[in-house]
Amino acid sequence: MAEVVTEGLSLDNPLVRVYAFYCSILVLKMMFMSVFTSMTRVKTKAYANPEDAARFKLKVKQDDNVERVRRAHLNDLENIPIFFIVSLIYILTNPSYFLTTWLFRAFTLARISHTFVYAVVVIPQPARGLSWATGFFITGYMAIQNVIYFLA
Amino acid sequence: MAEVVTEGLSLDNPLVRVYAFYCSILVLKMMFMSVFTSMTRVKTKAYANPEDAARFKLKVKQDDNVERVRRAHLNDLENIPIFFIVSLIYILTNPSYFLTTWLFRAFTLARISHTFVYAVVVIPQPARGLSWATGFFITGYMAIQNVIYFLA
Amino acid sequence: MAEVVTEGLSLDNPLVRVYAFYCSILVLKMMFMSVFTSMTRVKTKAYANPEDAARFKLKVKQDDNVERVRRAHLNDLENIPIFFIVSLIYILTNPSYFLTTWLFRAFTLARISHTFVYAVVVIPQPARGLSWATGFFITGYMAIQNVIYFLA
Repeated sequence: MAEVVTEGLSLDNPLVRVYAFYCSILVLKMMFMSVFTSMTRVKTKAYANPEDAARFKLKVKQDDNVERVRRAHLNDLENIPIFFIVSLIYILTNPSYFLTTWLFRAFTLARISHTFVYAVVVIPQPARGLSWATGFFITGYMAIQNVIYFLA
Repeated sequence: MAEVVTEGLSLDNPLVRVYAFYCSILVLKMMFMSVFTSMTRVKTKAYANPEDAARFKLKVKQDDNVERVRRAHLNDLENIPIFFIVSLIYILTNPSYFLTTWLFRAFTLARISHTFVYAVVVIPQPARGLSWATGFFITGYMAIQNVIYFLA
Repeated sequence: MAEVVTEGLSLDNPLVRVYAFYCSILVLKMMFMSVFTSMTRVKTKAYANPEDAARFKLKVKQDDNVERVRRAHLNDLENIPIFFIVSLIYILTNPSYFLTTWLFRAFTLARISHTFVYAVVVIPQPARGLSWATGFFITGYMAIQNVIYFLA
């Protein structure tokens, strides 16, 4: 027992392990966006800072492809950190292991697919809308469950 | 006791429950910003992606009302995730239950009021500045208390 | 023992204390960006909202210095919240105290130096790239360790 307590968050709870796994995947996915933006900037020669552009004797410019990747990244920033906190709290409400695992898995897949159809291969709507909505409703479902559980 | 440890974060601490409640409210508030942006885009016909605009035979354009909602949303991204982490750490410093509950409550109300006066009904300054500053100083107070507590 | 459990996250683990300290420093650093943006807006008279500009009988305008500070702030939003979650999970993988303390310390110094060379005193590349990469690889290292640990 003492050992578990020493580790801080308890790994006794299998949902903590599931949470740890999917959150780390989501962080790697978000980190990819930074690399993807840089690669797109190099390819399109569209730098945001004069000191970066100057190294290639270029001027600062905006490019539609770079802006598209940046919008996908910003969409991650709007949706993923709130998932991190809401799903951590959701674990405290004693949810079903099966349902929760599927919520975390579906959220992760939805966010990866969102980036793919938004910025890697642009697929016509409603592909992006559906990916976004899947993540949004999962987060919303958990947030509402949390509010009900902790209101008392 | 074993049961509590299995749940990971301890619900024995009443401040964990208060934290869980207000953080979930704040997440719902942030989720509203995404819906609000979409609604404003539809109303003003200002889409950010060519494939979205094309469905209504429109071109991509910027609109002042959409940009205002987006600035309010970005201000949330700048202020709320840091509150999530700072207030979680603050609970570990054994703070007063009464004070902490009021800090969490005031932060939540301040952020809701910030959005309201910024993007729902534009109210002249200092309304927005005061809402922002309330949240900012609460976060700053807790962050400094944390640094002092954990410096030792 | 009971006391520790009541506190929620266990302070028995010295890495939780190190985590709490560096995360609070990083939050203060991010809060500084908001103040820095405001100060730069006042100095360059570049306000984003018509109601703010109107108080000084100005019109809304963009300024390169303000945009530079805002890019540094956005870079924080892209990199620091993912560190908060990845490093919390990393503590659960029973890492070496010595290594982990240095990872947290190096990340914090790298992010402070990133802002300094990006927006306070503009220092030629590769200063900014190196600061950014230090933080990026630390986060990536921990995220990959987490995925391996929790994959089983």
